[in-house]
Amino acid sequence: MSNTTGELFKVSTFGESHGPCVGCVVDGMPSGFPITEADIDAELARRRPGQNAFSTPRKESDAVKIMSGVFEGKTTGAPVMLLINNENAASKDYENLKNLYRPSHADFTYAQKYGVRDYRGGGRASARLTAALVAAGALAQKYLKEKAGVEFLSHTSAVGGLSVNADIPVLKSVTRARIEASPVRCPYAEEKLMEAEIEAARKAGDSVGCVIRGLIKNLPAGLGEPVSGKLSARLAAAVMGINAAKGFEIGNGFEAARLRGSANNDPFVNAGGKITTENNRNGGVLGGISTGELVYFNAAFKPTATIFQPQKTVDENGAPVEFTAGGRHDPCLAARAVPVVDAVCAIAVMDLFLIRNAYAGH
Amino acid sequence: MSNTTGELFKVSTFGESHGPCVGCVVDGMPSGFPITEADIDAELARRRPGQNAFSTPRKESDAVKIMSGVFEGKTTGAPVMLLINNENAASKDYENLKNLYRPSHADFTYAQKYGVRDYRGGGRASARLTAALVAAGALAQKYLKEKAGVEFLSHTSAVGGLSVNADIPVLKSVTRARIEASPVRCPYAEEKLMEAEIEAARKAGDSVGCVIRGLIKNLPAGLGEPVSGKLSARLAAAVMGINAAKGFEIGNGFEAARLRGSANNDPFVNAGGKITTENNRNGGVLGGISTGELVYFNAAFKPTATIFQPQKTVDENGAPVEFTAGGRHDPCLAARAVPVVDAVCAIAVMDLFLIRNAYAGH
Amino acid sequence: MSNTTGELFKVSTFGESHGPCVGCVVDGMPSGFPITEADIDAELARRRPGQNAFSTPRKESDAVKIMSGVFEGKTTGAPVMLLINNENAASKDYENLKNLYRPSHADFTYAQKYGVRDYRGGGRASARLTAALVAAGALAQKYLKEKAGVEFLSHTSAVGGLSVNADIPVLKSVTRARIEASPVRCPYAEEKLMEAEIEAARKAGDSVGCVIRGLIKNLPAGLGEPVSGKLSARLAAAVMGINAAKGFEIGNGFEAARLRGSANNDPFVNAGGKITTENNRNGGVLGGISTGELVYFNAAFKPTATIFQPQKTVDENGAPVEFTAGGRHDPCLAARAVPVVDAVCAIAVMDLFLIRNAYAGH
Amino acid sequence: MSNTTGELFKVSTFGESHGPCVGCVVDGMPSGFPITEADIDAELARRRPGQNAFSTPRKESDAVKIMSGVFEGKTTGAPVMLLINNENAASKDYENLKNLYRPSHADFTYAQKYGVRDYRGGGRASARLTAALVAAGALAQKYLKEKAGVEFLSHTSAVGGLSVNADIPVLKSVTRARIEASPVRCPYAEEKLMEAEIEAARKAGDSVGCVIRGLIKNLPAGLGEPVSGKLSARLAAAVMGINAAKGFEIGNGFEAARLRGSANNDPFVNAGGKITTENNRNGGVLGGISTGELVYFNAAFKPTATIFQPQKTVDENGAPVEFTAGGRHDPCLAARAVPVVDAVCAIAVMDLFLIRNAYAGH
Repeated sequence: MSNTTGELFKVSTFGESHGPCVGCVVDGMPSGFPITEADIDAELARRRPGQNAFSTPRKESDAVKIMSGVFEGKTTGAPVMLLINNENAASKDYENLKNLYRPSHADFTYAQKYGVRDYRGGGRASARLTAALVAAGALAQKYLKEKAGVEFLSHTSAVGGLSVNADIPVLKSVTRARIEASPVRCPYAEEKLMEAEIEAARKAGDSVGCVIRGLIKNLPAGLGEPVSGKLSARLAAAVMGINAAKGFEIGNGFEAARLRGSANNDPFVNAGGKITTENNRNGGVLGGISTGELVYFNAAFKPTATIFQPQKTVDENGAPVEFTAGGRHDPCLAARAVPVVDAVCAIAVMDLFLIRNAYAGH
Repeated sequence: MSNTTGELFKVSTFGESHGPCVGCVVDGMPSGFPITEADIDAELARRRPGQNAFSTPRKESDAVKIMSGVFEGKTTGAPVMLLINNENAASKDYENLKNLYRPSHADFTYAQKYGVRDYRGGGRASARLTAALVAAGALAQKYLKEKAGVEFLSHTSAVGGLSVNADIPVLKSVTRARIEASPVRCPYAEEKLMEAEIEAARKAGDSVGCVIRGLIKNLPAGLGEPVSGKLSARLAAAVMGINAAKGFEIGNGFEAARLRGSANNDPFVNAGGKITTENNRNGGVLGGISTGELVYFNAAFKPTATIFQPQKTVDENGAPVEFTAGGRHDPCLAARAVPVVDAVCAIAVMDLFLIRNAYAGH
Repeated sequence: MSNTTGELFKVSTFGESHGPCVGCVVDGMPSGFPITEADIDAELARRRPGQNAFSTPRKESDAVKIMSGVFEGKTTGAPVMLLINNENAASKDYENLKNLYRPSHADFTYAQKYGVRDYRGGGRASARLTAALVAAGALAQKYLKEKAGVEFLSHTSAVGGLSVNADIPVLKSVTRARIEASPVRCPYAEEKLMEAEIEAARKAGDSVGCVIRGLIKNLPAGLGEPVSGKLSARLAAAVMGINAAKGFEIGNGFEAARLRGSANNDPFVNAGGKITTENNRNGGVLGGISTGELVYFNAAFKPTATIFQPQKTVDENGAPVEFTAGGRHDPCLAARAVPVVDAVCAIAVMDLFLIRNAYAGH
Repeated sequence: MSNTTGELFKVSTFGESHGPCVGCVVDGMPSGFPITEADIDAELARRRPGQNAFSTPRKESDAVKIMSGVFEGKTTGAPVMLLINNENAASKDYENLKNLYRPSHADFTYAQKYGVRDYRGGGRASARLTAALVAAGALAQKYLKEKAGVEFLSHTSAVGGLSVNADIPVLKSVTRARIEASPVRCPYAEEKLMEAEIEAARKAGDSVGCVIRGLIKNLPAGLGEPVSGKLSARLAAAVMGINAAKGFEIGNGFEAARLRGSANNDPFVNAGGKITTENNRNGGVLGGISTGELVYFNAAFKPTATIFQPQKTVDENGAPVEFTAGGRHDPCLAARAVPVVDAVCAIAVMDLFLIRNAYAGH
């Protein structure tokens, strides 16, 4: 609830864009597992601004400090507090925005909800917050990889009007290395076109939307809870909790709505002794529970709300104002949203994985 | 978690397709509020099978019994248990299916997860379960309507390849009466074409997918919690928890991913003293919190997995089998999914509404 | 929260004293486990009124119906709904009490909290509710016994001024059979004196308080969570949630407060290869986590608030009134509180047991 | 669960005795409320070691840093992260203890539960952790005082065999100033005798147990939830979650178990237009819900497990060892446990207060 998620693997985030830090407490990390700051920094580096021309030049070293829960290199079972100091937070960039409601930002709704508002860089509503999720997700990713071979391989599949389809064999061939080799984290040939599209938006002082394709490989069958904890619902909630997320579809998603049952149904087959579906149209989830096949989904992100063109809006009194944003902002979330999608999915899966363990063999 | 949802308005469902009953316990219903079985039956009637040619002829009277929490016509603050007896549950229809995994059903994943499986009509994975959600949602809908004027006006916006766009003024004009006047619960002129499409699928022994457009009218500003309880994420999780749901998008959703920021951004304007956005492209939610404008979203549902054509699949031992389903099933979920979408959204909103109250004036 | 407890083994109770039923939904029961109504009825029979002269003559058959979650004799992993119909609920006995606040009952506080009040037999505040807890606890007790040999052996250790001390060897020798052989569920020689004390109170139209000693045998080491989920804290909350509970102490409890550390400290010893404490003064819990030794605690219950002597109090308007209670009530809770203590402890332990499983081997 | 508590006012603690810090995230603090580090430091100062001869000389400045959730002196509604650095943590004092299980400490059970163990100063099981609870409680105390006049006035009522009774008028006269004027935080004449008893234990290299009497003044009627969230149960769980807590009783507690109903029952009276009980024997709680009268309870704490006499125990291999503790430890928890009891009760009450608000006027 609010800023805390999970039943057994509970993540409580804290921090604002221009406060001293962001971070999280991970309550429920299994004990005896080796975790280093370098493990987490590797994921934070993927999310860090200023990686290349396609992301904001805001400089943040984003080195995490493990403040509790790890002793002699291993988790103790105590809560793991992860702290990331904010640097280079130029609050004065926001002084001129403090009394107005930026279009498509959360300024207005936070003011409505809380009465007060930390206007510096969006405060709690800033995408800066996702660093804390990435840090927590790094623990989950490492654990799931080591214990069950689970891999999170989200990547950019669309930028603006440019979208890349991929069939199951192609999806299965995606690797983290290939994703990371692409500045826009698109492992497909179209990556250069996407870069061009982002660059065009940037030059126009504009931004552009994108779709992240989520992939979870080697997820065991049987994860997910009926009715209120379906794997598909948990992933949807996790992804829709990310800043700028506007849509989620699992498997063939909205396409399924256009099909007849005879075309959409997916027979089970015996693949050399293993029961699988023939086409995995459902995206690795049936009845809300993992089938043991590749999980895939799409997540839509709107274009970054901060653009560098003059915009009209109103101030807190409802008076019309025009303003032009300053500061540092990505023209497209694609590259940096990828590790966030991986992280929030890993957090959700980790929780369901531990819940499954609770009942294993019982 | 699992079969229980909500923080303050907590709904725990129970029951299987072919057990004696389905139902729920609603823990957290405010006291002193008038509730009758007729209030709930009215919503159940919307979901009931056999309403017309477009829904399964399974006969269920689906009359709810309020078993606790109401005294002299008013809620007491104690848990409200709502019980709906199952009738006409012909379990023997399923004897021949007990050892095979129906395509695109949850048979396989439930077997993987639980080891045992109630094969009768899908057991716990049956859409029969949604009756319990509709009953709980009826309490939330009545309360929110009376206390804050909130209305839930979901309706069918697409059947198969036939999709109906609607701009904000059209959405604002939708009424419950208009929705209910349509057998497919489509308040648009295209309803007859949709009926024809469903009838065509039915005649072919087939089924067809659909999209339900969710509408929440008069929702106050300030609902939703940051990071882990965003209104958009709560709605997504609620909708993705419904059987056959495959996708969710809020506001302009996946379309936003295709736009530039300059086209997608939505300036705030002063509408006669009230601050609103110019176009409500965000669907009434910014930063995960309601703006006070109309909330709208799309929910994709796959075609009913049960069709009446011969299908191939495997049995529990992995041996190939062919079967043809019997029983009674909707060729399209459209009409009956509408009240379920209303219900799960009302349950989610009710929870956020009470949470908001907890902080009101503080 | 409110009427729902547990993280993984979640029990949601419902029902009022004079409504149609009481019962619960158990969400999180492991699948594949054999459960029959007879299993539950056996525990309900221990709690049932009218067992002998020491308990209320209210007649309730208290036969449970398993309404969901069990198929072909085994749990399916779906929620288990347990329903117990109310019989012999003579609401008219309470008509004369509807406008007054009975001393030491919850009439006043429920009115303060909820505005409305089901005055019939205490409504939701009635000890009748504990039947639902006993039913849920029966599932937990059977599971823990079969899977880990855990036994719940609560019994009466004091009635009024008559209290029985017992050292660890005596506690270890207590059996369910011996407890059940005693009408007051006291496995000690003093049972006859206790019976006499209760009978004396009954004859005087009075009631008398009691202490239940909780025993949990064969509980594995390592159960309990630090800070917010200590085994001692979970047991305390469970027990203090029972009607009329006034106090809880674990191990030597309040006696420990009177000792020096040198007298209270309990060295670990090597007992034939097994590490245990020398005296188990801590009651089987250290740092909130089970040691693997016998868990024991005391729970204080006030005398039944309903007595058959004239009492003074006020009505809803604050006007003084005198009244004499009618109806059927135990002169002492001892015998019937015992199975309730067992039940709530089993529910709490079951939750911690499943949580432990989630981390086992990780 | 585990290290996180509360429904709406959620406190997640982190940190170990000899790690870099302890602290907490408070998720659910109402917005717009003024909070300064000085507010929190004032409560931390009450708990700080080295205050006088009766507490450990470990030096900790224990100055809190508010790391998030406060902007321009007021809470923003975002999570409040409170950080307290550990200083003067002489880990080498514990090197010789790393392989043995200290009597009546949590060394053994943590090893059983987690496999690994941070042996430095008890790690996560250290009473050092309570600093984080005190910090969170400071927020709750300030809020409840300002918004509803609620005061938390716990104090020492017994040290070893020396116990002080007090009737309701005396309890009502207790003030924070009087408590703080006493080095043992006992506002009664017996304080000097208690000091002497603690000093005698200290000189003997020993420790001594104590009882803290909890007082909550001006608590409004109607707080507490039925069955699973009774005020009495929430307070019991909160108090039993504190290190060394062994028992809890509310109102006349265990004494009630010895009484007849005619002596224990407490008639309601009209006190100048306000309905109250005549004697408040129930401790301000009936049916688990606050009556609006003074809440009082007793909490038993065992003597500090660390004493400076030679003790026998076993090491991790079960071999007998003798050791004498070094380091710095209180001979009696009395003085320093008082602010911790206040804090955990304030956290529990704050949660119930917000829940009550959620339903106020509905």
